[in-house]
Amino acid sequence: MTLKLYNYFRSSTSTRLRAALNLKRLDYDYVPVHLVKGAHRAAPYTTLNPQGLVPALELEDGTVLTQSLAIMEWLDEAYPDRPPLLPEGPVARARVRALAQMIALEIHPVNNLRVMNHHAAAVGGDAEAVKRAWFQHWVHTTFVPLEAMLATSPDTGLYCHGDRPGTADCCLYAQIWNNRRFEVDMTPYPTVTRIFDALDALPAFASAAPARQPDAG
Amino acid sequence: MTLKLYNYFRSSTSTRLRAALNLKRLDYDYVPVHLVKGAHRAAPYTTLNPQGLVPALELEDGTVLTQSLAIMEWLDEAYPDRPPLLPEGPVARARVRALAQMIALEIHPVNNLRVMNHHAAAVGGDAEAVKRAWFQHWVHTTFVPLEAMLATSPDTGLYCHGDRPGTADCCLYAQIWNNRRFEVDMTPYPTVTRIFDALDALPAFASAAPARQPDAG
Repeated sequence: MTLKLYNYFRSSTSTRLRAALNLKRLDYDYVPVHLVKGAHRAAPYTTLNPQGLVPALELEDGTVLTQSLAIMEWLDEAYPDRPPLLPEGPVARARVRALAQMIALEIHPVNNLRVMNHHAAAVGGDAEAVKRAWFQHWVHTTFVPLEAMLATSPDTGLYCHGDRPGTADCCLYAQIWNNRRFEVDMTPYPTVTRIFDALDALPAFASAAPARQPDAG
Repeated sequence: MTLKLYNYFRSSTSTRLRAALNLKRLDYDYVPVHLVKGAHRAAPYTTLNPQGLVPALELEDGTVLTQSLAIMEWLDEAYPDRPPLLPEGPVARARVRALAQMIALEIHPVNNLRVMNHHAAAVGGDAEAVKRAWFQHWVHTTFVPLEAMLATSPDTGLYCHGDRPGTADCCLYAQIWNNRRFEVDMTPYPTVTRIFDALDALPAFASAAPARQPDAG
């Protein structure tokens, strides 16, 4: 089995997938795609993924999977004997998927670099300040209800759902690293912070962190 | 069985879920949440869904599910004997989920009304023109690779994946209605258009269209 992970150290969707692969105890070849140099928008990468987004996972037979959430679902379906990323029971699974999607849908795509650049170019002025304000706004918009949902649910445990880390934790862990880059004040989110700290104490997560990757610069 | 669907006729995520419920042949109570009047951002709706987004699905026992993609996964898991929204086989399922997520992650959240309003307020000028340009930009950014992926894959059939409509089709169908509101030129996307027309000929989809809902105004 040789899985090839096309990814970038600082990409939040890459971080979440690295954590998921680690939780499943799957080895993979790390293939860096240098986003800042635009390697994702040019051949040969665009022949693998016409959307030009990382990550992508290439299977042994050459099949290329895209979209990190779809790949995480595939990991559970292709390797049912490895530790599961989703809990048992349809309602529990729906809860974990919804928590994951709050981050992966409502925050991440809106705060993707290409979206922030497009917004900052239209606004003008200090691009870095405009992007930081935009980033923080959309994190807070979703982290307020996310904190409330995690803090009040009896289903929350050491991690987002009980005491076994999974899909929602992969998304949360990656998002917090991104938050730090953009100086998001985490004071209002004690439950999220507690879960991040618990995850960061696990080798599966810590070894997926951006600074630990071979292309980290 | 009484499923309650909290939704809004023109909401794209609501349209995709209505189509999915119809494909599963499940009856539901239609509970309108008037987004333009802000009903989603106030009690009682925010007690059901603290995130204040539609749709939400309330089950008979009072459990509330949120995030349309998570709910569609739940529909397949909770009703395995009804027509499936995802095909068989992990790789095929990963393809359908990735196509769905191209629309549900890369386009929809960025073009959500609250994001467009926030962008337009920062840019200034003619808000409607600013929003239309933003909307069209993000549709084209993803529809170019989406068209290529659908047009070149042998897995594409009458619909996004083979000849049975499912999750990706629900997302595509809803997105096209939204595109029409914002006057997106569909000329470059003949495969997407062909699939939309095929879906619109099916009662499960046509009856989920925005204009057919009780709260359509």
